Formats: sequence, C-alpha cells, structure tokens
Amino acid sequence: MLVVATGVFEILHPGHIQYLEAAKRLGDSLTVIVARDITAVARKRRPVISEDQRLHMVSSLKPVDEAILGDLKDFFSTIVKIRPDILAIGPDQDFDDDEVQRKLDELGLPTKVKRIVDYWDSGLHSSKIIVDLIKKQ
Amino acid sequence: MLVVATGVFEILHPGHIQYLEAAKRLGDSLTVIVARDITAVARKRRPVISEDQRLHMVSSLKPVDEAILGDLKDFFSTIVKIRPDILAIGPDQDFDDDEVQRKLDELGLPTKVKRIVDYWDSGLHSSKIIVDLIKKQ
Repeated sequence: MLVVATGVFEILHPGHIQYLEAAKRLGDSLTVIVARDITAVARKRRPVISEDQRLHMVSSLKPVDEAILGDLKDFFSTIVKIRPDILAIGPDQDFDDDEVQRKLDELGLPTKVKRIVDYWDSGLHSSKIIVDLIKKQ
Repeated sequence: MLVVATGVFEILHPGHIQYLEAAKRLGDSLTVIVARDITAVARKRRPVISEDQRLHMVSSLKPVDEAILGDLKDFFSTIVKIRPDILAIGPDQDFDDDEVQRKLDELGLPTKVKRIVDYWDSGLHSSKIIVDLIKKQ
C-alpha cells in the first residue's frame, strides 16, 4: 500500500511529524510531494526556505521513504505518475476531500483520500507557531 | 565512535538537518541531547514547543540514532553518563569551544569538541528564519 502525503513544509514542527507518521501508518511506504516554490506562492506566499532545502529536510524524516518535488503546474499529474493507494491530507490542509476524491475517480486512479485528524486537538500548525514566536520576540 | 550533538530544536529548519548530518558523519552513532524547557528559558526564552514534542521531532530524523532530554541542571552530567568520543557543536551555538574542551578534560572524559562549520555560509539559523517569516506576515 503506497501512501502519498503533501505540503510545503517550510519549517518542521511536531504537527508535521505527526501528520507524516499517521500517513505512514496507513500503508507500507510513504512518498511525500513537496510543493514547488511557485506553487507555494500561488497558494500562500513565497517560502523563506527554497524547494531544494525543503525537499532535503522532508527526505531526512524517518517516516518518509521518498520525497519528491511536485509538478510546476498540476498537482494531479504527479499523482497520476505515482498511482498511490492512499492520498493522506493533513488536518489543516485546505482541500475539499470530496472534490479531490471526485477528481481522482475521474482520472481513473485507485487512490482513496484519507483525512488525517490525529493531531488536530493539539492545535499545532505553522501559522499558530509562527504567531507565538512573533509574540515572544 | 559515538557522537553527541545538542540543541533546543524548537522548529526544524535545513540548518538543523545539515548540522546533525555533519555530526553523524564524524562517527558511527549520533545521540542528540535536546535541551529541557527550563534550560532553554535560562539561555534564550521559553520554547513554544514543549520538550517532549521537541524530543519526538528530533528522534524522527534519519541521522539521529537516539535523542534524549538533557539534565535539568548540568549539561555536563549527561556527557559524563554518555561518554561520547565527540561533542559536535553547531555553527551558531554560543559555546566557547576551548572552555568546553577544558571542562571535558577536567572531568577525565575522552570527548573531543568539534565545531561543525559546514552550513555556516548559507546563513540559515532559527532567528534569521523567524525574522524573515515575520516580515512576510
């Protein structure tokens, strides 16, 4: 069972680790698609850490079997290439699960969307951590 | 050859990974001493991320064979217990290498201090990254 997880992973915090550990537990092998700089810009803002460094950082995590950079234009083209059994979406990731599932079905993929909820209660996500760090400056 | 590295590791950035990879290359096994919350307070400020979560995060890195929490009072008491061959100090860590070496010698330890300089040119360290993130808010 191949699982795919995805994200920008600008800085790593415990919520990221928990997300990737939970994703790994859904199958045998975990591939992480790290968002390109240009994709991150389109979705949020330009990362401080370059895509190559973010890729290296995610690759260095024990639950991660493989990390790759995403496609420059179309997220789903990478999914079509990999054909994972499961696409694990993080607790605070801004995707419509049903819409993603419909798109995967339309593409004739066997991939099932699973929303990871394991760490949601801890309230740990990048924006909160960054805000807390700012307050302490 | 047992290597020890140390730090607060509040958030992980590529500089941390490079430090720990470089430390691991100095020997066969890498143990990381993660600073207790109370030690971080004394040296810098109270971490946003608790010591247990920071420990878990550092443990999840591929170059790390073992991660442990530091002593509540005395950094060197942990070193005495572990008796590493090498104590790898990060590029931006505020230690006087000669002073640390003298202290290790006085304690009768075989440990040699090595300053990691591999990533210094990239200018990657927590404070700079946090400042850059703040500017982008």
